[in-house]
Amino acid sequence: MNIRSFKSGKDRREALGKEVGVSLANIGSFSLDEAIASSRNCENMIGIAQIPMGVAGPLRITNRKQEHDYYLPLATTEGALVASINRGCKAITQSGGATVAVESVGVTRGPVFATSGIIESLNAKKWIDTHVEELGKVAAKTSLHLGLKKLRTRVVGKNVYVRFFFDTQDAMGMNMATIATTSMYRYIEVKTRAKGVSVAGNFDIDKKPAWLNSISGRGKRVWAEVTIPSKVLKKTLKTTAKKVYDVWLAKCMIGSAISGSLGFNAQFANVIAAIFLATGQDMAHVVEGSLGITTCEVLSTPEVKNSSHLGGESEESLYVSIYLPDIMVGTVGGGTGLATQKEALSILGVAGGNEGKNAQKFAEVIGAAVLAGEISLLASLEEGTLAQAHQRLARGKSK
Amino acid sequence: MNIRSFKSGKDRREALGKEVGVSLANIGSFSLDEAIASSRNCENMIGIAQIPMGVAGPLRITNRKQEHDYYLPLATTEGALVASINRGCKAITQSGGATVAVESVGVTRGPVFATSGIIESLNAKKWIDTHVEELGKVAAKTSLHLGLKKLRTRVVGKNVYVRFFFDTQDAMGMNMATIATTSMYRYIEVKTRAKGVSVAGNFDIDKKPAWLNSISGRGKRVWAEVTIPSKVLKKTLKTTAKKVYDVWLAKCMIGSAISGSLGFNAQFANVIAAIFLATGQDMAHVVEGSLGITTCEVLSTPEVKNSSHLGGESEESLYVSIYLPDIMVGTVGGGTGLATQKEALSILGVAGGNEGKNAQKFAEVIGAAVLAGEISLLASLEEGTLAQAHQRLARGKSK
Amino acid sequence: MNIRSFKSGKDRREALGKEVGVSLANIGSFSLDEAIASSRNCENMIGIAQIPMGVAGPLRITNRKQEHDYYLPLATTEGALVASINRGCKAITQSGGATVAVESVGVTRGPVFATSGIIESLNAKKWIDTHVEELGKVAAKTSLHLGLKKLRTRVVGKNVYVRFFFDTQDAMGMNMATIATTSMYRYIEVKTRAKGVSVAGNFDIDKKPAWLNSISGRGKRVWAEVTIPSKVLKKTLKTTAKKVYDVWLAKCMIGSAISGSLGFNAQFANVIAAIFLATGQDMAHVVEGSLGITTCEVLSTPEVKNSSHLGGESEESLYVSIYLPDIMVGTVGGGTGLATQKEALSILGVAGGNEGKNAQKFAEVIGAAVLAGEISLLASLEEGTLAQAHQRLARGKSK
Amino acid sequence: MNIRSFKSGKDRREALGKEVGVSLANIGSFSLDEAIASSRNCENMIGIAQIPMGVAGPLRITNRKQEHDYYLPLATTEGALVASINRGCKAITQSGGATVAVESVGVTRGPVFATSGIIESLNAKKWIDTHVEELGKVAAKTSLHLGLKKLRTRVVGKNVYVRFFFDTQDAMGMNMATIATTSMYRYIEVKTRAKGVSVAGNFDIDKKPAWLNSISGRGKRVWAEVTIPSKVLKKTLKTTAKKVYDVWLAKCMIGSAISGSLGFNAQFANVIAAIFLATGQDMAHVVEGSLGITTCEVLSTPEVKNSSHLGGESEESLYVSIYLPDIMVGTVGGGTGLATQKEALSILGVAGGNEGKNAQKFAEVIGAAVLAGEISLLASLEEGTLAQAHQRLARGKSK
Repeated sequence: MNIRSFKSGKDRREALGKEVGVSLANIGSFSLDEAIASSRNCENMIGIAQIPMGVAGPLRITNRKQEHDYYLPLATTEGALVASINRGCKAITQSGGATVAVESVGVTRGPVFATSGIIESLNAKKWIDTHVEELGKVAAKTSLHLGLKKLRTRVVGKNVYVRFFFDTQDAMGMNMATIATTSMYRYIEVKTRAKGVSVAGNFDIDKKPAWLNSISGRGKRVWAEVTIPSKVLKKTLKTTAKKVYDVWLAKCMIGSAISGSLGFNAQFANVIAAIFLATGQDMAHVVEGSLGITTCEVLSTPEVKNSSHLGGESEESLYVSIYLPDIMVGTVGGGTGLATQKEALSILGVAGGNEGKNAQKFAEVIGAAVLAGEISLLASLEEGTLAQAHQRLARGKSK
Repeated sequence: MNIRSFKSGKDRREALGKEVGVSLANIGSFSLDEAIASSRNCENMIGIAQIPMGVAGPLRITNRKQEHDYYLPLATTEGALVASINRGCKAITQSGGATVAVESVGVTRGPVFATSGIIESLNAKKWIDTHVEELGKVAAKTSLHLGLKKLRTRVVGKNVYVRFFFDTQDAMGMNMATIATTSMYRYIEVKTRAKGVSVAGNFDIDKKPAWLNSISGRGKRVWAEVTIPSKVLKKTLKTTAKKVYDVWLAKCMIGSAISGSLGFNAQFANVIAAIFLATGQDMAHVVEGSLGITTCEVLSTPEVKNSSHLGGESEESLYVSIYLPDIMVGTVGGGTGLATQKEALSILGVAGGNEGKNAQKFAEVIGAAVLAGEISLLASLEEGTLAQAHQRLARGKSK
Repeated sequence: MNIRSFKSGKDRREALGKEVGVSLANIGSFSLDEAIASSRNCENMIGIAQIPMGVAGPLRITNRKQEHDYYLPLATTEGALVASINRGCKAITQSGGATVAVESVGVTRGPVFATSGIIESLNAKKWIDTHVEELGKVAAKTSLHLGLKKLRTRVVGKNVYVRFFFDTQDAMGMNMATIATTSMYRYIEVKTRAKGVSVAGNFDIDKKPAWLNSISGRGKRVWAEVTIPSKVLKKTLKTTAKKVYDVWLAKCMIGSAISGSLGFNAQFANVIAAIFLATGQDMAHVVEGSLGITTCEVLSTPEVKNSSHLGGESEESLYVSIYLPDIMVGTVGGGTGLATQKEALSILGVAGGNEGKNAQKFAEVIGAAVLAGEISLLASLEEGTLAQAHQRLARGKSK
Repeated sequence: MNIRSFKSGKDRREALGKEVGVSLANIGSFSLDEAIASSRNCENMIGIAQIPMGVAGPLRITNRKQEHDYYLPLATTEGALVASINRGCKAITQSGGATVAVESVGVTRGPVFATSGIIESLNAKKWIDTHVEELGKVAAKTSLHLGLKKLRTRVVGKNVYVRFFFDTQDAMGMNMATIATTSMYRYIEVKTRAKGVSVAGNFDIDKKPAWLNSISGRGKRVWAEVTIPSKVLKKTLKTTAKKVYDVWLAKCMIGSAISGSLGFNAQFANVIAAIFLATGQDMAHVVEGSLGITTCEVLSTPEVKNSSHLGGESEESLYVSIYLPDIMVGTVGGGTGLATQKEALSILGVAGGNEGKNAQKFAEVIGAAVLAGEISLLASLEEGTLAQAHQRLARGKSK
């Protein structure tokens, strides 16, 4: 069967169903515009995958003296996840909201060139390092929505690697970046004696878990934090500051250290995956979203101590922060224009392009959502209710 | 708005739409059974995310002298991905098919305990190390479909970490593993002086990119390989063995080495994400699927050389292999029972439970699919068509 | 000048001095037996390097209810290091001594073989995995002092890697291990279809900083701990438990996490280098000794609290532990038989072979010494005296 | 015994000898100036460690059209090492010499500060990022030989990390850097609301194996390369280009990749350790010298092919390069002023200060020496002579 030869997804689906002897009725039931999806998002289309979408919230973000409550669209097939994030949202909102911050590092793309040896490699590197502006003009010609922010070079023997950083406004921008890089790649070949080997040489480094992205950042760097009072810890999270802290230290710090992990966190990837899926992000970028660090601190509140009948510990509040060095997201382009994805972005009020502001705001919400996920899981690991939650919410799943 | 207080997804969706002032019509259009999905897969459900599903193939797998052609269900919003994988499938099939192999390492879950110091920690470790059978009985009581395969322990000061490996047949099994671990966790607390801190202590290590999983394996280890003759390289992939080899060495090896990457590959994550999404896998496990190594070798075919008019290089064939140390997949449980996901698994002939054989076969297909993705991308990076493909297939995306 | 053509170090030294126009009088002044050193330890010998050796201690180790006070021989050219370790020894001894534990993992050596593809690779792996005893006999024939403990195998495409673990008693044993490995390497070539590529394939992994050694261990794993009372913290270390804890968390945990470090510690390498140098160890193994984790915990002492006039914090004691996963040491062989090195080992009472007990005891002392170094540096970083110490002790150095 | 209470090393040595019942005669025999060594390099001095010093060479370096032959001073106790490096030197020199290049990245030191939360952290970061010149003036006041080159900052929750890069001319400069950092640390405390936690926060990252140093560089970055003709491969190295290439790929690339190594090389640490020890470098910096990448390439020489009676392979030449991202060395300060160490530096013609040129030249020689070590070991691993060399040269060692 030649799967490229069909005129429509319907024809292809039916032929494939016949070929493998399976009804594909559900895959064939959907509302999105097949013509657009099949030309922009997916070749050889046969229909759609349907993923349950839930919502968590309200999640309060308090930034620059403004407060806003968000409802998080989360697409997942993993029972208990939405409920867990929802509990974290509740705890954050009850604590007055999360503080968030975002730095736009830029999407990266990086070619590799070959030379005749070290001296020529270093000459090419020098030329590239000293012609950033000129290269930026070459890049800018490829798109009105892209700018070259900076670049980094690295030489290993006959190989010269470049890491370009681009501002792509509200788009995640990987494709724009590739097109702009290809243009500069040809230009560098003309201007230096280096010969292009590959437009993408893993110094980018795209969709691989890598220390370079942790250290140098990629896409957006995101921070979020909240201080949870003892009351919220007790009532909503059924725990104490000290207990969550102990789980965090043993798990996210020392446990990650003995495992050679690039993620010093509890479950960044779960939250990232659910938001990315609902909002049309590139799911392979979940890999990069799993990088980062959660920190905790127990704060004593001495003024309360004296009047307490419960002993000091239960009066302590808990500071929790998350740091995401590499969040690759967009609110235009890619899957963001598809029907359900656009609606999900609209729930957050960030659908479409807005001079980079929508992507910025979207990253802020992601930061707060990841924070909610960490708080809830760290609390449940301590209270031993993780398995119970799964048993209750996902019963029958593994049968 | 209290999002937990609604009786149905419809009510919740409508209330949310009103709250944020957005129509959620598309999210509300679907065929899956909301009652099941909302009880097993997703709390606070409001509808579904629709992701375009395409198909690539036929992809021939030649194993143990048997040949089988597969069509890969791939859900993605990234234009050019399905086409790229499809080209790799074609090259593999034209080359006689991929050889694949799978080793079932087992899903892992690992608690952390606290003690009074090194001596007590080492005593607890010793007890655990020497009571694997006894612990296996405790674990087995929690499910008919789970068995404890082995365990590893690690001591750091007052912390004792355990990494349990489970056989969970055709299920990915993370929830089963958590339930069994919780049971052994309580048992260890009774039998030793160690006190449980957390049922999951990141020595598991779940959904984080970590060297431990690369080295010790998790879920399934998968290998796949193919030798591509010069004709196929030329006609289907528009390249030569030497050119692909050079891209591979500069990108996947040296490029990954300078980037501190755990993935010595071109794009494992893209292929893993698309298959996982179509078939109802846990999308956060894409993180672990991004680990692994691609290898290449140029094979000269001297007998052909003499009769060649084109010179030696173009007659060389290319050996390509991929190694995936950590593939977490299932054909029952989680999202695999949902309507479109089950159909996707059925396209591969691996839906449902079958004494572990379906998950095994599914992992084999994933291995071959990842191989297809690597071959196609490595070839396109050399020929410089990556950007062109994106421009052609995904035009308008980044506008 | 042909440097291999001289009969003695003296002749070579004088010729070299003339060649480069430099007097090498000090390099020529030494007491060690040149004949032995030049045949066993160093080819083309011209004399010696003289490194100042200091001593720190007493350092009390309290193990299995026995107490022993050690004096640490430390060879270094870095002013302030011996003084810093000495302060740590004092704090430990005043606190009642360090508790230590050692696990002998074994020196590793690992060849790599080539095959025709995955299936043959997995067959070779299977043969190796199931013939450990047989291989052990082959290994045992090469030395009376070596035994094969276990092995691990890994397949990547056409490559089969082995990691042999050897018991080499009191010897560090790298050379013995290489000889035994070479013998098994030839044997495996005969018994399987795998063809040897290299007797050492970096799956060993020798003298490189690698997660495999951190995770799987190499040589000896060492733990050490002590609880330092508030008095000692105050008088000897001029600090408090809380202050040291804060430095540790910010530096050894989070600081290491953002730096992609395999060492979650303050200065393991400094202490390892100084002891290794004094005692004739292989200095390239300092690389592996830099791996590992320091942990801290603040312990409140409530009974003391009430009677305190100083407030709670200053009455807190501090638990500190270190974990070294990869200590490669010996008390026989290599440089341990040289004159000054043997004397240094004798200061610790561990010179020569003793059925593995001397190497075990030596590793224990190293653990306690590293603990002393951590305590002292973490305290000085907090109190801001690091630079002062360097200015005072090493004045003139940077002029 | 109070080891700090003695007036001289002799008194201390004799008292210690008595205390542990051991003669320390050899440790007491040396020519260096105890008064200087005990005040600048080593407290509580009891004498010296004597390490055999050999020499390898001539090693030709061909740079900027100039040729120079060096003799490498190497202090080691590991038999076969000097002989192995010597063989590599011979191969390089016979091949016309190594090409080398050095980039001075600068020694780093990095404090960590605490704030009240993310916003304050980012404010402090911003202040630091925008006051580099002002901070440079503060740093410059602490030494005439130090300049602040640049800085990097990182925020994780309440923690603000800085990585200062210093030019310290011919000194390795760690102490100078610490003193300058302490001064800026106090200054930043005054100018921002951040409170100093530690003058060294592991974002430096000193003497730990870390991806940050691999990626961002530290001290000096060094490259070296040579192309070895088939004749030299055959006669001097007893191998062929293809054989060495295969060892390199299986070991340094794929073997390192499966081991989670930061060193993609054969034995950088061995060579670094021997040179560092001979020349008075800080031996804990061997850790950083073990980082880096070796590359190989087989070059065909077609013009020779036709006239060959031996077949194509043996006429191929081999390109080998090494890349050292993190070499911490000096020619003044630290241990470089001691008698034997100064003589060793004089053998290379780089003793003392010379406006940074001596350290530069020293780093070049280290690069070529490391290249020699790689070539020789990779060749011997292939020919299987590693064990034989050890057996012959180091016989009796492990008895």
